[in-house]
Amino acid sequence: MMAELSDKEYAMQRIQEVNTALSDGMYVAARRMLHNMPACDIALLLESSPPKSRAIVWKLVDADEHGDILEELSEEVQKSIIRQMAPEKLAAATEGMDTDDLAYVLRGLPDQVYQEVLKSMDERDRERAETALSYDEDSAGGIMNTDTITVRADVTVDVVLRYLRLKGELPEATDKLYVADRNDKLIGEIALSRLVTVDPSKVVSDIMSPDIVSIPVDMDETEVAKLFERHDWVSAPVVDADQQLVGRITIDDVVDIIREDAQHSMLSMAGLEDDEDTFAPVLKSTRRRTVWLAINLVTALLAAMVSSLFEDVLAQMAVLAILNTIVPSMGGIAGSQTLTLVIRGMALGHIGSSNSRWLIGKELAIGALNGVIWSVLIAAVVALWMQSWLVGGIIAFAMMMNLLAASLAGVTVPMILKRFDIDPALAGGVILTTVTDVVGIFAFLGTATLLLS
Amino acid sequence: MMAELSDKEYAMQRIQEVNTALSDGMYVAARRMLHNMPACDIALLLESSPPKSRAIVWKLVDADEHGDILEELSEEVQKSIIRQMAPEKLAAATEGMDTDDLAYVLRGLPDQVYQEVLKSMDERDRERAETALSYDEDSAGGIMNTDTITVRADVTVDVVLRYLRLKGELPEATDKLYVADRNDKLIGEIALSRLVTVDPSKVVSDIMSPDIVSIPVDMDETEVAKLFERHDWVSAPVVDADQQLVGRITIDDVVDIIREDAQHSMLSMAGLEDDEDTFAPVLKSTRRRTVWLAINLVTALLAAMVSSLFEDVLAQMAVLAILNTIVPSMGGIAGSQTLTLVIRGMALGHIGSSNSRWLIGKELAIGALNGVIWSVLIAAVVALWMQSWLVGGIIAFAMMMNLLAASLAGVTVPMILKRFDIDPALAGGVILTTVTDVVGIFAFLGTATLLLS
Repeated sequence: MMAELSDKEYAMQRIQEVNTALSDGMYVAARRMLHNMPACDIALLLESSPPKSRAIVWKLVDADEHGDILEELSEEVQKSIIRQMAPEKLAAATEGMDTDDLAYVLRGLPDQVYQEVLKSMDERDRERAETALSYDEDSAGGIMNTDTITVRADVTVDVVLRYLRLKGELPEATDKLYVADRNDKLIGEIALSRLVTVDPSKVVSDIMSPDIVSIPVDMDETEVAKLFERHDWVSAPVVDADQQLVGRITIDDVVDIIREDAQHSMLSMAGLEDDEDTFAPVLKSTRRRTVWLAINLVTALLAAMVSSLFEDVLAQMAVLAILNTIVPSMGGIAGSQTLTLVIRGMALGHIGSSNSRWLIGKELAIGALNGVIWSVLIAAVVALWMQSWLVGGIIAFAMMMNLLAASLAGVTVPMILKRFDIDPALAGGVILTTVTDVVGIFAFLGTATLLLS
Repeated sequence: MMAELSDKEYAMQRIQEVNTALSDGMYVAARRMLHNMPACDIALLLESSPPKSRAIVWKLVDADEHGDILEELSEEVQKSIIRQMAPEKLAAATEGMDTDDLAYVLRGLPDQVYQEVLKSMDERDRERAETALSYDEDSAGGIMNTDTITVRADVTVDVVLRYLRLKGELPEATDKLYVADRNDKLIGEIALSRLVTVDPSKVVSDIMSPDIVSIPVDMDETEVAKLFERHDWVSAPVVDADQQLVGRITIDDVVDIIREDAQHSMLSMAGLEDDEDTFAPVLKSTRRRTVWLAINLVTALLAAMVSSLFEDVLAQMAVLAILNTIVPSMGGIAGSQTLTLVIRGMALGHIGSSNSRWLIGKELAIGALNGVIWSVLIAAVVALWMQSWLVGGIIAFAMMMNLLAASLAGVTVPMILKRFDIDPALAGGVILTTVTDVVGIFAFLGTATLLLS
């Protein structure tokens, strides 16, 4: 019997039904619906609910589903929920969680609650939690699970198979067994797909893959994600400094990192946090965005100050005031195209010292070409509109200058920022806009002052 | 023996060495280095090379590596390379490629070359290619592989294991076997991890998972990726309209889609294509970006025209010309924060009819709060700078209006665009900027006209 396809539309429809029940105050019906929903759908419902409905939904959900749902939530939303849970309920919810998820939840807790949750846990879970928490959150250790299955090199496949049958069940997403020596050093691996195809009388050391790439426990998660992408891995072993196997990372956790890393640039460019909660309370969202607006107000004031240097010519000719925004605006657009491309290229690891000079040359050439096209066009438009070829010529010159400046800044600003270890996606846009505003206004109003006053 | 960790830095270093050898004209040394490089590193080298070096590197690479490298390249770069290959060489390179990669390469070919490549293939590859090409490129059929392993429900595990040992090797990333009935209808699946833990005398029908979610062959790849992410799958079966198994999709292909989808919004917002090649030739890049600049020039001209409506007041007071850019600029920044958040929320499936009203209310509240903060501040700055509380009051009013308009437009523009099936990431920014420019200028210069002239 095949299950109905539970695709997004279907999930959205069910979520809609729950929402309708909630807004009609039909809590019993809502509770029944939630009872039949898979954890990933409830997580989606919570992610897309305003704070108040979030609290209600959470109360209506079966308590034994809490753990599974928490695992599926994004950091921000998860935090907003666990902050309202009693420590002993939280301890119950974390029972049986994967090590990496457990550490993730515990890290989000205030110190006191954290101690209480730890106290409410049973011995084994507490130990697991403490080990996981000893690694950095964004490192391989922070995202790994400790549920590896290890075999010795000198036994036969038949013995391994009997051992597995005795175990009865393997951890989720197990696709290989690891081979360790007497000192627990990792010396090889066997894919399950190999285990089922070889002659059972063979010895493990003869059929294992000895040349495996393992991940150091302190490697940054973004590096881990890149390795997974490059090598098409489903899982990979994690080792400590002595090459001892300490855990494994599975693709499902890596997928989250890949998506977050890919979204990071877009959110940073708008001054938003990686894990920004769309449905966060107003005050919290305002606080964050205010900082960004403050930075940009400084940029805008700077541009106004540059304009104010040319107050005389502006007072003389209102036409210049009308046209003054065109050149900075086009520069900003052209520059942000280059900037976006370079930021993405850096994130993909395509841009280095070997090709940066070529790239600057290329972008300057594009800037020059676009400069010619748009200078001619804007000159014609302005000359016809304002009935002055001189003003047309001035804006054409400013456009050319600013598109060149935009290209140059679009490539070099992120490169320089990266050298100083500043996130180009976060700071690049503001600096670029400042460059294109200042150059654009100087070129336009400065030339006008020279030629017209 | 453990292999050295081949992380990105290491790859980048080797790529640097090849580049140095190439620029010194040491082609023999470069060829030797390339010979020892894994396909994924050569792909990275090609992706980060300007067109000329790309052609040289490709010539130096072993011909029997061509297929593996092509599989790793992004669409744009792949196209630029296969366009220069002779059809019979291309046919040789595609030998043994996974079905989905094969289809991907063939789709990039001009019609005539495509026919020739198909002719140069052996019978089996040609059939595989033609099947794969019959599905839409962006559908489940376009990304699936046909290398599934199927067993019958009435045999024992022991028989299955003997069958697998006879086969000798399983396709890459095989994590489960599929169970089909006499009519090839998919009726269940068995994970390899289950196969190795159950009693071998058990019958397949007793140990298989019957309630599996399968993917219709015409499902859009973005939907497929979402299902993988939600369910933490490693692979999933693909079925046709009759529930017959036609292939399987593996996580490594899905990871590419997840990354591309996540990057899509950022690139679209800057008017760039999803698969934009950072190192494309100048002319090609210019052509694409010119369209985007053209659209934005219209926006800039529109803003200038709005300003021109207030020529009288601008001619009277140059101060207004100086301050005229501040309000539109702040509106643009605030609006694009909201826009980015909403676009991401839509991509994640968090925003629907049930919460859109709440979201509009929230963003308007943030706009109002920010409006109050920045109105007061800008009023003070301008009053002190320009020595006029009246001008300060006018800009404060305009700021308030424009931040409200920015919030409202930031939420509603993408929602409306989506209803008309227009990509909000592509068109949203331009429309938003137009709104914040026009409202900002109208509010500032309009009020100034009323109060000052």
